[in-house]
Amino acid sequence: MLLNRPVKGFLLDITGVLYNSSGNGGTAIEGSIDAVKRLYEESKVAFVSNESSHTRQHLLDRLTRLGFKLNMNDIYTPAPVAIDIMKKNNLRPYLLVHKDCLDEFKDLDTSNPNCVLMGDAEDDFTFHKMNEAFKILLNTKNSKLFTMGNGKFYQRVDGPCLDVGAFGAGLKFATNCEHEIIGKPNESYFMTAVNKMNLTKDDVVMIGDDIVSDVGGAQKIGIRGISVRTGKWRPEWESHPDVTPDFIGNNLKEIVDMILDNKVK
Amino acid sequence: MLLNRPVKGFLLDITGVLYNSSGNGGTAIEGSIDAVKRLYEESKVAFVSNESSHTRQHLLDRLTRLGFKLNMNDIYTPAPVAIDIMKKNNLRPYLLVHKDCLDEFKDLDTSNPNCVLMGDAEDDFTFHKMNEAFKILLNTKNSKLFTMGNGKFYQRVDGPCLDVGAFGAGLKFATNCEHEIIGKPNESYFMTAVNKMNLTKDDVVMIGDDIVSDVGGAQKIGIRGISVRTGKWRPEWESHPDVTPDFIGNNLKEIVDMILDNKVK
Repeated sequence: MLLNRPVKGFLLDITGVLYNSSGNGGTAIEGSIDAVKRLYEESKVAFVSNESSHTRQHLLDRLTRLGFKLNMNDIYTPAPVAIDIMKKNNLRPYLLVHKDCLDEFKDLDTSNPNCVLMGDAEDDFTFHKMNEAFKILLNTKNSKLFTMGNGKFYQRVDGPCLDVGAFGAGLKFATNCEHEIIGKPNESYFMTAVNKMNLTKDDVVMIGDDIVSDVGGAQKIGIRGISVRTGKWRPEWESHPDVTPDFIGNNLKEIVDMILDNKVK
Repeated sequence: MLLNRPVKGFLLDITGVLYNSSGNGGTAIEGSIDAVKRLYEESKVAFVSNESSHTRQHLLDRLTRLGFKLNMNDIYTPAPVAIDIMKKNNLRPYLLVHKDCLDEFKDLDTSNPNCVLMGDAEDDFTFHKMNEAFKILLNTKNSKLFTMGNGKFYQRVDGPCLDVGAFGAGLKFATNCEHEIIGKPNESYFMTAVNKMNLTKDDVVMIGDDIVSDVGGAQKIGIRGISVRTGKWRPEWESHPDVTPDFIGNNLKEIVDMILDNKVK
């Protein structure tokens, strides 16, 4: 018995677990290509990402170029969920998203915005755009801030890099607006992937480099959370005040091999 | 007896009370030029601002062009205090300040930064600069974020505009760093002006458009706080959960005239 219960499926974060990103691509993390291959052959796998600076297709192309083999249908990103929420609730978002992602939202009505939808906009987090978002939240009654993920930072090849959560925190400080996170650590987001695998919470583990969104988020809803010492991992998180991972491994390959070889007690 | 005790001196916020700013100057708020004139003639006055996108000289020039008559020595801005703190504590700040203000900090050692000093940088709040500040706070042991003021927003001629506090909140969310506010609502900042007037807390009132930094900040240290319905003032603040102003007036002139004419009971 591994980690007290059998592991029948793996939820994997992408950035910092499969690869570290950079402006023009990034680099695969050692062993991760083989680990993904083994998971496809011997278990079930889904990629549960808060990535919002690339479309799923773009992300798949990027990973494929790096040598990964995975199926588009196994990749979960917040954008399609966000689009669904906007349409169902007649929301017209002010889009503060990465320019490479704008196309994904082209069917949404963005005239006369009544909410803000924010992703990891990177260089598009300008003062002007932050101000536009701020004014909508300040001046529109019951307007809400939606963020695709709520991370503090993520790892790029050139170092750690501020994530959407920081810019969301700024808008919340200025406006006291309501805030809804679309993506991890939202229960429904994890569960979409689990259900699609025809498994239950008890069957799967979540492996990620974000102690709060990945590991803590999974654990909070009863999914085992495994921390990986790659990407943005920080040594001080191993004594994190709120989150104790069910297991910690040096990289994805080590964790996958240990679990599939029944070496995690 | 006005407001229960005589008023022997006036602390005034500048932006939103004297004038509303814009990129190339701004516009005087109706009556404020006369109000300042009357205060110089009949009472004592100091201008206690969190302004950090202009030097004191620049601010004086701007106000003079708009028709105000005031003395440079009566203007308090956070930058000189910040410079003093940096020098006394051997701090080498990463400067995230407005480009028009950079010159004011030219004597500081900014090599190999060990803290972040942030002002109202406006267009200089780029993703790149926010990231640089973030990396210093994340990677430097015991590093600290200093912000000149901590406002949520301020009023420009073209509308409300995000203030330094929002960007500070983002960096704090991402790093859990220590944070020190230089400016209002810090007690020592108000008291520098009060002492310079040879008055006590009991003698003065603070008039401002920011319910938290101006009115609440003053009240917290025992100075009467007066809210003015100009600048960034919002109707909902008149039932603010934490702050009840000692008096509320429609504009600076009305407040000054009522107090000096003994009409505030």
